[in-house]
Amino acid sequence: MSRLNARQLAVVDALQSELSPGSVLVGGEVTGRAAGIWRSDTVQAPVLVRPDSTAAVSTALRVCSALAQPVITHGGLTGLAEGALTGPDDVVLSTERLQRVYPVDTANRTLLAAAGVTLQAAQAAAEQADLMLALDLGARGSCTLGGVAATNAGGHQVLRYGMAREQILGIEAVLADGTVLTSLNSMLKNNAGYDLKQLFIGTEGTLGIITRVRLRLRPRWRTQETALLACDHFTQVTGLLAALDESLGGTLSAFEVLWKDFYQLVSPAQKPLEPHHAYYVLAEALGSQPATDAERFTAAIADAAAAGLVSDAVVCKSGAERAALWAMRDSVERTLEHGPASIFDVSLAAASMESYVARVRDCLRDEWGEACRMWVFGHAGDGNLHIVVAAGTGDAQSSRRIERCVYEPLGAAGGSISGEHGIGLEKKRWLPVCRTPAELDTMRRLKRALDPANLLNPGRVIDLQQPAAQA
Amino acid sequence: MSRLNARQLAVVDALQSELSPGSVLVGGEVTGRAAGIWRSDTVQAPVLVRPDSTAAVSTALRVCSALAQPVITHGGLTGLAEGALTGPDDVVLSTERLQRVYPVDTANRTLLAAAGVTLQAAQAAAEQADLMLALDLGARGSCTLGGVAATNAGGHQVLRYGMAREQILGIEAVLADGTVLTSLNSMLKNNAGYDLKQLFIGTEGTLGIITRVRLRLRPRWRTQETALLACDHFTQVTGLLAALDESLGGTLSAFEVLWKDFYQLVSPAQKPLEPHHAYYVLAEALGSQPATDAERFTAAIADAAAAGLVSDAVVCKSGAERAALWAMRDSVERTLEHGPASIFDVSLAAASMESYVARVRDCLRDEWGEACRMWVFGHAGDGNLHIVVAAGTGDAQSSRRIERCVYEPLGAAGGSISGEHGIGLEKKRWLPVCRTPAELDTMRRLKRALDPANLLNPGRVIDLQQPAAQA
Repeated sequence: MSRLNARQLAVVDALQSELSPGSVLVGGEVTGRAAGIWRSDTVQAPVLVRPDSTAAVSTALRVCSALAQPVITHGGLTGLAEGALTGPDDVVLSTERLQRVYPVDTANRTLLAAAGVTLQAAQAAAEQADLMLALDLGARGSCTLGGVAATNAGGHQVLRYGMAREQILGIEAVLADGTVLTSLNSMLKNNAGYDLKQLFIGTEGTLGIITRVRLRLRPRWRTQETALLACDHFTQVTGLLAALDESLGGTLSAFEVLWKDFYQLVSPAQKPLEPHHAYYVLAEALGSQPATDAERFTAAIADAAAAGLVSDAVVCKSGAERAALWAMRDSVERTLEHGPASIFDVSLAAASMESYVARVRDCLRDEWGEACRMWVFGHAGDGNLHIVVAAGTGDAQSSRRIERCVYEPLGAAGGSISGEHGIGLEKKRWLPVCRTPAELDTMRRLKRALDPANLLNPGRVIDLQQPAAQA
Repeated sequence: MSRLNARQLAVVDALQSELSPGSVLVGGEVTGRAAGIWRSDTVQAPVLVRPDSTAAVSTALRVCSALAQPVITHGGLTGLAEGALTGPDDVVLSTERLQRVYPVDTANRTLLAAAGVTLQAAQAAAEQADLMLALDLGARGSCTLGGVAATNAGGHQVLRYGMAREQILGIEAVLADGTVLTSLNSMLKNNAGYDLKQLFIGTEGTLGIITRVRLRLRPRWRTQETALLACDHFTQVTGLLAALDESLGGTLSAFEVLWKDFYQLVSPAQKPLEPHHAYYVLAEALGSQPATDAERFTAAIADAAAAGLVSDAVVCKSGAERAALWAMRDSVERTLEHGPASIFDVSLAAASMESYVARVRDCLRDEWGEACRMWVFGHAGDGNLHIVVAAGTGDAQSSRRIERCVYEPLGAAGGSISGEHGIGLEKKRWLPVCRTPAELDTMRRLKRALDPANLLNPGRVIDLQQPAAQA
C-alpha cells in the first residue's frame, strides 16, 4: 500500500467520517489505475474520493480546503495535455459516481446531467428524445460531460455548431472552499448579471469542479452528404471553404484538410483520389431536407469546381464510402508506425496556414535533417490543425526541440498553441508564445480570486506564484 | 459651469497634462449632454474624458485609479437599464473618439474595430466586403461596438446566429488600474488558457473598459422569407417553433410572438390576419438558395398547418409586405399612447411562457384592477419576452408594484429578469429573484479581483460592499 503523508491521512479520516461508505479509496485501488486511457503509467496519488452528489463534492472540497490539500479532478481521463497527472502528495477527486441523467426537456430542448456522465450517454439521451447534442469527438465513450465542459472540447462539428462552450447553457460547480455555485441557466438569452458558467468552461478545472451541466439540444439532422475534394494550391482550399459555407447555407459541418503527406500515409491502396495533389478536403454537410439536400450538395461542389476551386472530387454514394473516408481521416495511429511521434493541436487563421506549415517544416529540417517526418491534417474549417512530428528519440530534449519548431512560428502568425486540447501541464511553458504577460497575469488574478490557496488542479494552465517560464 | 470637487479638479489637471488637447471636457459641454438618447434628463457628471487611443484610455484610468475617482463609461447611450447614468461626483469616459475600423480580413472573415464605432458602421464595413456581421438591433445607428459587447446585446437574429457574445472572437480592454489587456483572438478555436474576453462580455463595463473588438463575420444571406402565422393555443406556438427550426434546416432566424392584445394594438386597419387569435408569430428565414428557398419556406409552413400547428397564415410576397409586418412588430411606442408605461425584458423557457404571463396578468389585476393595461410580445424563439405595463402614475412606488408582479413569478418559472437589456442600476434590486446568493457573491469576487477599488461603473449590476437589497 502506498504511503500517505500526514495531511492525506487527516483528509482520509475526515472524508470517511463525512461521506457515504465507498466514497474514499486509498492505496492500490488508486495507484493501480491507469493515469490516462491512452497512457501506460499509473496514478501516483494514493487517495481518491468519489463523491456521489454535489453536496458530497462540496464536503470533500471543504475538508481538503481546511487542510490545504491539493485536489486533482478525474473525469474520463481522455485529455491530451497532461491535465490529470498526479503526484504522491495529491488527492484525486473523481466524478465517476456523478451519473444522473435527468429527463430531457423536449419542449425547451435542454438536457441536465451530472458531470460524470459520458458524452455518449448524453448523446443517447438526446437521441431518444429525437433531438441532438451537437458535440461529438472520438473519445465519446469515455470522456465525461464535466471534462468536455472544463476543457471546452471541440471535435467533429465545430464548424456548424461551435465548441462545447456553445452547447452549454448552465453549469453547477463547486469552488475550492466548498461553495456550491448552481448556475444552471436553461435559456438562450440571459443577461441577468455576469455569465458565471464562462468561468468554468475551458479553465481545465482550475477554478472549480463542475458537478452538473445543462446542455442545449438541437433538432437532429436528417441527411448527411460527404465528399473528398483535391486542391493543388492553398488558395483553392480557403476559397473552397468560403464557397461551400455560403452555398450550403449553414449546413456545412466539417471541412477537414489532409496535407499530401498525410493523405499518402493514410489513404488505402485503392485511392479515392490520385495522390499527387497538395491538399485533400473532406467536406460534409448535415441537412434536414431529404428530397433536395443531395442535389444541393453536388451542385455546390460542381459550382466550386467550375470556379476553379477544386482539382478533383469524389462524392460519397453510400454510408460505407463515407465511413471509409472518415476512417482514413481518423487514422492518426498510422503516424506512430515510424516510432515515437508528437501530436500537436495548433490553431491559426486559414489564410496563414500554408506559410506557417512551411516555416515549421523548414525549422524541423534545420534541426533534424532527413531524420524527421511530419504529417499535417485537421479541422481547417475551424482554423485548427493537428501536426504530427516523428523525430528524435522521444526524450525531453527532443520534445523541446520539436515543440520550438511548431510553437514559435505561431507568434508571428497570430495563432494559438492549442485549438481544442487545452494546456494542462504539457503546454504551460509555451503559453507566452500566444498570450501576453497582461493576459497571463489576469488569468492569475482570476485563479487567486476563486482558489486563493491554489488547491484545484494546481500547476495546470498557469503557475500561480511566478510568471510562466519561457522554455 | 458645474462645480468640480477637489478630486475631480485633480483628475482634470492630470488628464489635461497627459492627454492630447480636446480630450477633457468640463462643465456645460458635459452637463448639456442628454443622459441617454431616449431620455430627457442630462448628464450629471461635470467631467468627461474622451481618449483617442487605447493608450489614452489606459492613461485616463491610471490617473483616475491613482485618485480613486469613479468612472462611468459612455458609448452610444442607447442602453435601457440605466447603466450609463452619472452623478455629480463621477467622471465620464466616452469612447466617442475610438473610431478606427481596420480593413476587413476577408480570407479569415473577421473585422477589427475600435469600441466607439457604431454597429451600423461595422455592419457596413462587413457588407462592403460581401460579408455580414450577424448582429442587428434597432439602435444600430447609435449603439457602439463597445456597448453591444459590454451588454452582450441580442436583437433580431439571435435564434440563428446567437447573441453578441457569439459574434466576438477577441476583445481588448483596459482594466481599472490602466492595464491594457489585449486579447484580440481571431480564431474560432483557441483553448490556450482562460478565455479572458468572456470577462468583459455582458458585464456592463464593471470589470474593464473595452477599447477594441474583433468580430466574426459570416457569409451574407441571399434570400429572406417572412410570414405571419396565427395560433389559438400556446402549444401550437411551441410546436411551430420546433417544427420550423427543424424543417428550415438552421435558416430560421426570427420567431417573434405577438400576444393578441399587442397585435390588436399595433396591427393596421387592413389586418393581415383576423384579430381574434390568441397568438401571432412573425417567422423569418434567411437563406442562400434563391432557386429553392421560397418554395421550401412555403412548404414548411404548409406542413406545420397540416400538423395542426397553425390556424391561419400569410406569407409575404414583397419587401413592402415584409417591412409592414416588421414595422407592426416594432411599434412599441403605441403602448405609450395610454400614458406612462414600463417596458420589461424577461426570459424564460418557451414552455413556461403561457402560465407565466397568466400569473403576471393576475397579479397586475389584483394590484390595479381595470386601471391597468399589459401587452406582451418578443423574441419567443429565443425565450425572450418584452412586457409593457401601463398602470399607476409612473412614480417609484407604482414602478415597484409593477416590477413585483413581473419579476417575482420568474423565480418559480426558472426565468431571468433580463434576456438582453442587462441589469444596470435599474434592475439590480431584483437580481436575487433569478440569481442565488452564491452567484451574487461570485460576481463580487470577480469584481474585487479586477476592480478592487470599485471604480468602473460602480453600483451597476451588483453592489460590492453589501448583498444586493431585496426590494
